[in-house]
Amino acid sequence: MLPEWVRQRCPDISAPHREIALARQAQLTKPASSLGRLEHLACELAGLQETEEPRATIAPIVIFAGDHGVVAQGVSAYPQEVTIAMMANFAGGGAAISVLARELGSTLEVVDAGTLTQSPIPGIVTDKPRHGSRDFSQQAALTSTEVAFALECGKRAVLRAGTPDVLIFGEMGIGNTTASAAIAAALLGIGAEQTTGSGTGVDAKGRALKTRVIDQALVRHGLTKPGLSVEDVLCAVGGLEIIAISGAIIAAAERRTPVLIDGFIVSVAALAAVRLNPSCRSYLLASHRSAEQGHRLVLDALGLQPLIDLDLRLGEGSGAAIALPLLRLACALHNNMATFAEAAVPDRA
Amino acid sequence: MLPEWVRQRCPDISAPHREIALARQAQLTKPASSLGRLEHLACELAGLQETEEPRATIAPIVIFAGDHGVVAQGVSAYPQEVTIAMMANFAGGGAAISVLARELGSTLEVVDAGTLTQSPIPGIVTDKPRHGSRDFSQQAALTSTEVAFALECGKRAVLRAGTPDVLIFGEMGIGNTTASAAIAAALLGIGAEQTTGSGTGVDAKGRALKTRVIDQALVRHGLTKPGLSVEDVLCAVGGLEIIAISGAIIAAAERRTPVLIDGFIVSVAALAAVRLNPSCRSYLLASHRSAEQGHRLVLDALGLQPLIDLDLRLGEGSGAAIALPLLRLACALHNNMATFAEAAVPDRA
Repeated sequence: MLPEWVRQRCPDISAPHREIALARQAQLTKPASSLGRLEHLACELAGLQETEEPRATIAPIVIFAGDHGVVAQGVSAYPQEVTIAMMANFAGGGAAISVLARELGSTLEVVDAGTLTQSPIPGIVTDKPRHGSRDFSQQAALTSTEVAFALECGKRAVLRAGTPDVLIFGEMGIGNTTASAAIAAALLGIGAEQTTGSGTGVDAKGRALKTRVIDQALVRHGLTKPGLSVEDVLCAVGGLEIIAISGAIIAAAERRTPVLIDGFIVSVAALAAVRLNPSCRSYLLASHRSAEQGHRLVLDALGLQPLIDLDLRLGEGSGAAIALPLLRLACALHNNMATFAEAAVPDRA
Repeated sequence: MLPEWVRQRCPDISAPHREIALARQAQLTKPASSLGRLEHLACELAGLQETEEPRATIAPIVIFAGDHGVVAQGVSAYPQEVTIAMMANFAGGGAAISVLARELGSTLEVVDAGTLTQSPIPGIVTDKPRHGSRDFSQQAALTSTEVAFALECGKRAVLRAGTPDVLIFGEMGIGNTTASAAIAAALLGIGAEQTTGSGTGVDAKGRALKTRVIDQALVRHGLTKPGLSVEDVLCAVGGLEIIAISGAIIAAAERRTPVLIDGFIVSVAALAAVRLNPSCRSYLLASHRSAEQGHRLVLDALGLQPLIDLDLRLGEGSGAAIALPLLRLACALHNNMATFAEAAVPDRA
C-alpha cells in the first residue's frame, strides 16, 4: 500500500496570476514575445507560485543516492563503490553539483536513500529502508514496504527544505540508468532498446548487454503485459533513490513548489510521479535534454520541452542546476523591466 | 581606406593551454565528456585566454546604437524615435539588457554610434560621425570615412572596457535588421529572401516589402556581383552601430579577449569582422540562435554553434547576456571540481 498523500490532488495553477503575468509581458519595453520561451516560463511560474512576482531565488538542491543489485550483471562502466565515494565527494565540495551549488548560492543536501554503506558518512542524511536494491534480473528489486519508505524519504527531504521558490533534485547511483531504463520501458510499454543508453559510458557491447538484461527482467516480472500498476513496476525494477525523487516531486507539487527536472533518471522518476499522481504534472519544469538515449522519449511522454541541449549526461542534478540561471533571469526580466508607459518609449501603432 | 589595425593578425589560440585544460577535464570526478559542450567551452576559453584558469567573471556589456535612413521605406514595425527612447531606457535601467547587466554584475555602457539625436543623452557615450545612415534604397548609406570612424568607435569602446575576461556587444537601432539582412545577403552572395526576417515584428506583407527594398538596393549598389570588398558592402548598405560592433570584435580579438556573440545583427557584424580579418574568428563564442530568419545561415557561415535556442529575438545583447551564466558555470566546473585522485573516487578501469 502506498502512502495516502501520494495520490492527493495538487493545487491548480492560478489562472488569474498567469493572466496578470501575460498582460505585464505585453507592456514591457521590448517587441511583443521577443523574449521567447523566457516570457512563457515567467508566466507559468507566476501561475504556479500564485504570485505577481515569480521567483527562482531560493532553489535548494537535494541529491538522493542509492545502490542497485543489478550492477552484478556488469551493466555499468564504473565500479559500484563509486556511489559511496561520490556521496563523500558531494559533501566534500569536489563534485560538479557541489561546485554548481556554491556558484548558484543554493544549499546542497545529500540523502543516502539506499546505498550499500553500513556506516553513516559525515554530512549526509541517512534515510533508507535497506542497503541497495535487490538484483532485478533475479528477483523483485524492492518490496512494497520499501517502495513506500522511499516515497516518504522524498517527502521528508521536501519538508526539510523549508519554503523554497523552486526545488532541484539530483541522483547518484551506479547502475541507476539501468533501473531507470527498465522503469521507463515498463511505464511507456516499449522495449528496452528504446530506453537504454550508455549511462556513465558503456560501449556498444555493454549497451547490448544492458538492454538484454532489462528486456529479460521485463518479461520475468510480467512488465510487458498491460494493466500493471506503477507500484508493481517500482517493486519489480525500481531503485530507492529514483523512487525517493518521485515522492519528493509529488510532495513538492502538493506544496505548490515547482521542480526543475534534471536528466534521464530524474525524468523517469517524474514520469513515475505523474503516473502515480497526474495532478503534479504542471509543477514540472524541464531543464535540459540529456545525451542519454531515452531521455527524449521520457520528456515527450511528460510533454516537457527542455531549456538547454548541451550534450550533458552527468546527472547529480547538474543539468537542472546549469539551467537555473535561465529561470532566474526570466524572473528578473519579468519583475524588473520597465513598461512602455514607465519608460516613455513609443509602442508600435 | 580602412584603419590599418583592422587587418592586423590576432594572436593564435594557445595550444599548450588548451591541451592542459583537456587533460584536466579527463581527471575531474565525472564520467568522461559527461559535461558535454561545457567542457569544450572551458578548454577553448583556456586556450584563448592563455591560462590554466579560464574565466568569464568580468564581462562588460557595450551597446552600440544607430539610426537607419532606410526606415523611410516603411521597413520597421516601430517608429524611428524608439532608438533614442530606448537609449534613455538602457541608461535608466528599465530595458531588458539593463536588468540582465544588474543580475549578472556586468557593467553596461551605451554608445551612440550614430543615432539621430542632436543633443547628448545623460549616461550615454556619444561617438558618431553623423546622425543616422543615409537611406540605402536611394544612395550609399555611408562614406568610406564614416565606415572607418565607426570601426574606430568600436575599438575605442574596447579600450575603455579595461581588461575583461570576455566581452558582450549589443545593438539598438530601428531598421537595423534591414541593414543586417542586406549586409548578410551581400557577404554570403544570396538573395534577401533568405536573410530577411520579421525584425521587431513586421507581418508577412511588411516582410515582403523589406525583402524587396533590400533586393533592389543590392542591385542598385552592384552588390550582387562577385569580387566586391567588405568595405564596398558596408558603405553601400551598412549601419553605424553594426560597423562599430565589427570594429569592437576585431579590437577585442587583437587583445586576446573572447566575445560572446548575440543574435542576428551582432552575428552579421561578426561576419563582416571575419571577412575583414579572418584571424579574429577563433575569439567568437556563439550564445544563442535567434528566432530571426537568417541567423542560422550567418552562424553556419561563421561555423558557430549556439549554446541556447529559446526563440529570443530582442537584440540589445540580451541573448549573449542570458547565455553568460553557462560560460561562467563551465569555468567554475573546470577550475573547482576535484580530480579522481583528490577525491579518492575510483575511476573506471
